[in-house]
Amino acid sequence: MTALIDQLDLRPGDRLPTEATLTGRLQTSRSTVREAFRQLEQTGLVVAVQGQGRFLSATGGLRVERPMTQYESITEVLTARGYRVSSAVLSVAEAAAGPEAAAALEIEVGAPVIRLVRIRFGDDRPLVVSENTVPRELLPGPIAHRDWGGSLTAALAAHGEYVQTALATVSAVDLPAEWEEPHHLAGMGPWLLVTEVGLSISGRRVLHAKDYHRGSEISFTVLRQR
Amino acid sequence: MTALIDQLDLRPGDRLPTEATLTGRLQTSRSTVREAFRQLEQTGLVVAVQGQGRFLSATGGLRVERPMTQYESITEVLTARGYRVSSAVLSVAEAAAGPEAAAALEIEVGAPVIRLVRIRFGDDRPLVVSENTVPRELLPGPIAHRDWGGSLTAALAAHGEYVQTALATVSAVDLPAEWEEPHHLAGMGPWLLVTEVGLSISGRRVLHAKDYHRGSEISFTVLRQR
Repeated sequence: MTALIDQLDLRPGDRLPTEATLTGRLQTSRSTVREAFRQLEQTGLVVAVQGQGRFLSATGGLRVERPMTQYESITEVLTARGYRVSSAVLSVAEAAAGPEAAAALEIEVGAPVIRLVRIRFGDDRPLVVSENTVPRELLPGPIAHRDWGGSLTAALAAHGEYVQTALATVSAVDLPAEWEEPHHLAGMGPWLLVTEVGLSISGRRVLHAKDYHRGSEISFTVLRQR
Repeated sequence: MTALIDQLDLRPGDRLPTEATLTGRLQTSRSTVREAFRQLEQTGLVVAVQGQGRFLSATGGLRVERPMTQYESITEVLTARGYRVSSAVLSVAEAAAGPEAAAALEIEVGAPVIRLVRIRFGDDRPLVVSENTVPRELLPGPIAHRDWGGSLTAALAAHGEYVQTALATVSAVDLPAEWEEPHHLAGMGPWLLVTEVGLSISGRRVLHAKDYHRGSEISFTVLRQR
């Protein structure tokens, strides 16, 4: 398809010939041309503007570094920003699923889960507080024998549940008061909360996470297209 | 390509045959099979897991409603959430580009710009405070004769600069003090700041926006993939 663009010798911002013109010039069918346009629009290389036609876009090849659309563990997020990462497990317990986690994981309220709360430090400063909920049966065995300071997604993958996709919601919040006082996290300003549910390749909802990122330190980038 | 998947009669989560197996079974070349895999991975329908092989994914077709990756005006964002939208222009002025806007727009510091500050209300409650900076020459004519309560992207489009892409950064912040007091916006909790530069089809940087969304009311969703 890009051969067509090359052939037309267009520059970014230029208007493309109409479907009718191209159908004649390329001696092909209208539906072939339309399908070609559709594919080019999907890649972002060509943009259709209502009532004005189709244009060659300069922004189709734009990429941002480490976009938010790429699923990353908190360790990866912090390491990429140049921090030396460590973590503290605040609590790990077998629990009954609360309404929010149950809805996200599509399990019954009260179903057995493992609930894990951790602080992640970057260069010894608290940068992320995360609360994770996993259906109990996905990580079998007594919880006392696992190292909960490590990667939860790696532990899930080891049990055959590779998190491939996450549905995430991002918002700005205060840190829950229950964590502020006991862990000396008060007065650190707003936190960027990413609430997400991780789905394994089979489509199973295997991980509910509420990750509070310190607003003054962590932001996310995303490319937005019309 | 999906015909291949159908033919193999796989269910989400199933492992795909290896390249070698498929090459033999389909009586085609290894490079053809590899290219087919590459295309399937791009669509998200097939996932390669390091050291384990390729799997049919259940999440390739997942979509979220109104994802953050879709560029929308603030009016569209609020309308989609069911709010009756109105806006107040706090200030509009010809100004000299500051360092942040200049860097984002790739213009000289001090270059002539139009700076516009507005509050957007949803059901008469302040939900978004936005500061927009546009290179002066993109919106010609005396500024007194424009309705600055309307869509800035529509005004730019009318002058041939259709914003097609935005590079956005999302963070959690307090509202700048300069706006809190005079406009009675103090004490509303954390704000979700989207800082973005809008690029037109030709790749020109035409709009710098800092949009402060009230954290208790507005969040964004995004689909994240490995």
